[in-house]
Amino acid sequence: MIRVAVMGYGTIGSGVVEVLDINKNSIAKRAGEEIGVKYILDLRDFPGDPIQEKVVHDYKVIANDPEVQIVVETMGGVEPAYTFVKAMLTAGKHVTTSNKALVAAKGAELIALAKKKNVNFMFEASVGGGIPIIRPLNSCLTADEIEEITGIVNGTTNYMLTKMTEEGSEFDDVLKDAQAKGYAEKDPTADIEGYDACRKIAILTSLVCGQQVDFEDIHTEGITKITATDIRYAKTMGRAIKLLASSHKVGDGYVAMVAPFLLPATHPLYNVNDVFNAIFVHGNVLGDAMFYGSGAGKLPTASAVVADIVDMAKHLDTNIAVEWSSKKLELVDYRNVENCYFVRTSADEKRIEEVFGEVSYVTAEGVSGETGFVTARMSEADYEKKAAELGSVLQMIRVAQ
Amino acid sequence: MIRVAVMGYGTIGSGVVEVLDINKNSIAKRAGEEIGVKYILDLRDFPGDPIQEKVVHDYKVIANDPEVQIVVETMGGVEPAYTFVKAMLTAGKHVTTSNKALVAAKGAELIALAKKKNVNFMFEASVGGGIPIIRPLNSCLTADEIEEITGIVNGTTNYMLTKMTEEGSEFDDVLKDAQAKGYAEKDPTADIEGYDACRKIAILTSLVCGQQVDFEDIHTEGITKITATDIRYAKTMGRAIKLLASSHKVGDGYVAMVAPFLLPATHPLYNVNDVFNAIFVHGNVLGDAMFYGSGAGKLPTASAVVADIVDMAKHLDTNIAVEWSSKKLELVDYRNVENCYFVRTSADEKRIEEVFGEVSYVTAEGVSGETGFVTARMSEADYEKKAAELGSVLQMIRVAQ
Repeated sequence: MIRVAVMGYGTIGSGVVEVLDINKNSIAKRAGEEIGVKYILDLRDFPGDPIQEKVVHDYKVIANDPEVQIVVETMGGVEPAYTFVKAMLTAGKHVTTSNKALVAAKGAELIALAKKKNVNFMFEASVGGGIPIIRPLNSCLTADEIEEITGIVNGTTNYMLTKMTEEGSEFDDVLKDAQAKGYAEKDPTADIEGYDACRKIAILTSLVCGQQVDFEDIHTEGITKITATDIRYAKTMGRAIKLLASSHKVGDGYVAMVAPFLLPATHPLYNVNDVFNAIFVHGNVLGDAMFYGSGAGKLPTASAVVADIVDMAKHLDTNIAVEWSSKKLELVDYRNVENCYFVRTSADEKRIEEVFGEVSYVTAEGVSGETGFVTARMSEADYEKKAAELGSVLQMIRVAQ
Repeated sequence: MIRVAVMGYGTIGSGVVEVLDINKNSIAKRAGEEIGVKYILDLRDFPGDPIQEKVVHDYKVIANDPEVQIVVETMGGVEPAYTFVKAMLTAGKHVTTSNKALVAAKGAELIALAKKKNVNFMFEASVGGGIPIIRPLNSCLTADEIEEITGIVNGTTNYMLTKMTEEGSEFDDVLKDAQAKGYAEKDPTADIEGYDACRKIAILTSLVCGQQVDFEDIHTEGITKITATDIRYAKTMGRAIKLLASSHKVGDGYVAMVAPFLLPATHPLYNVNDVFNAIFVHGNVLGDAMFYGSGAGKLPTASAVVADIVDMAKHLDTNIAVEWSSKKLELVDYRNVENCYFVRTSADEKRIEEVFGEVSYVTAEGVSGETGFVTARMSEADYEKKAAELGSVLQMIRVAQ
């Protein structure tokens, strides 16, 4: 039997224990051996829970037990997860984590440490929940240069934008609904300001380019400024507003961004609704591909963690190479990227055309006292200059092709 | 340098050589070594082609050359591909193939032979072209019991159905257009009768259940009977007609089928249009997932073959376990499966209700002299009995949930 320890018995951690139990037989068959949970690390006790006797409060108990070969980290946050994971890898144990904050901040270092100790550090669940995307990037799309990776990687905001579109409701009302349903946290900042998506695209971009991408370098806008009026315009344009986390190859470099975009109905991500996530990939020989599924939730996320456990169980003596060096990648300035921009303004058409030249006007049902238009294609820097010149910009949303 | 031989220098084979050249550097980095093509096996010579000096006509030249470690089979058809592949595996060479006919007919045997010889037999490109689906099933969705796998796995028929929907045209006209564009072959039987999709779902089902599924056992209907009138009905129902290759878990068994289905707009496969393919998977803990991309075409398919080459280059001394035994799986009779059925008939409503009980009537713009309706949920066997009783059935298409 292969002994596993789970650090953090919250939603995902308890989901991992549940999945290992539900699919015990098929997992044992695929792993080549039965998988048993020996320890659960948590600050709390769980009296009455079948796992109560496995609970320990000191991570060193796990690090010092040679019987434990695989450790699951589902605590979240950089510390103390980082300290614990480092100790486990140093002790020669394989580690899988669902923790995007840890992976975005310390991924390169932990991958290097795992390699040095001839174990594996895996993180399939850190992006896209249950959707296989990390392993496909590492082992399936290896014939390609990935030229673009664009995802709907935050279920909370996607649920909210879907609701706003379906019901025509305002941001604040939908946020309350999402909180009531447990889709948004009490403090929803990380989701609605795009910080969560930012960490995920940092991870994906690091894997695509093989270098360290610092999430602080990624231009990030959330969805807090999106209104019911914007949604009305989107509808007359036949488009959907989605929070995209995206990175593109530009020459030899990469540019990354998190922001709401107006997607056309022909885009593979257009129909990704509710709490679902999807990641679109464009390879230079593959062309377009997309991976879709449950981006969050207890069992789907646990499914990805357990798939890592199975993979590690099959590679107990082998480090599977992951290309992600600690060498920092300097991203191309997003202001150089070209887009078309949907703008709402109180300025009149004469003034708009003086500043932006030829534009396409857009109207929306029941909206008056303002003008909506889509600009020609131009760099972000150019747009910013013109927008400042125009003044009185009520809203700007990028228009995806 | 790792030496590769390509058997069959047609569309896919030449694509493999092209991809190995285009992405030479990144492939070498990922494979850990440069990949060089040493031989090309083909009946033809290719005077003037840069590869002309690599052409051989006898597969034994390759089998007997110890320098060749990896062989690509892109000939198509069961023979002589089977004889050649068997010889290569027996000679201790890794083999990747894009040949679904070979994999469906001989997959279990070739997997077992590869295992015995401690090499790998891979076939990512045999289903879904460039879409990673074989490797995800083998190494990503390992925490789950796969309860359903349903794909749009034939680009030709999907292109035709998309055209019929967009243009309201008839089957024969669209077939001519698809042939003119090179999307359908001169003899389109394998595509339009569903035989191609049938082999692919046989492969996917074998991987999901770990046993041999014979494609001859799978109930298969093509799209030849779909008319512009059916498409009109589909439109008033807000549905799309798609050729689905599907298998479901039923109790401890599996049932598989290839047939056109009416898909609701909420289904992840609803928006998969033109020559694109997609494979929907439902796992008992993962929930819904979908893999989407280019299901055919020279470079996308070659991308999948080359990804296999990279994987084999990283596992030259290791057989990666594939669960697909030669033990035959007896499929559950499709007549036991329950569906709702859309029916067009010349019978009147009174007669329809006498036979089928309560039904939902459907009308279509510009269609008269017949009645369209959707039945309640019932088994295929029950439907067949009732349809025979009703007589005068003009069309039946299954309605997906």
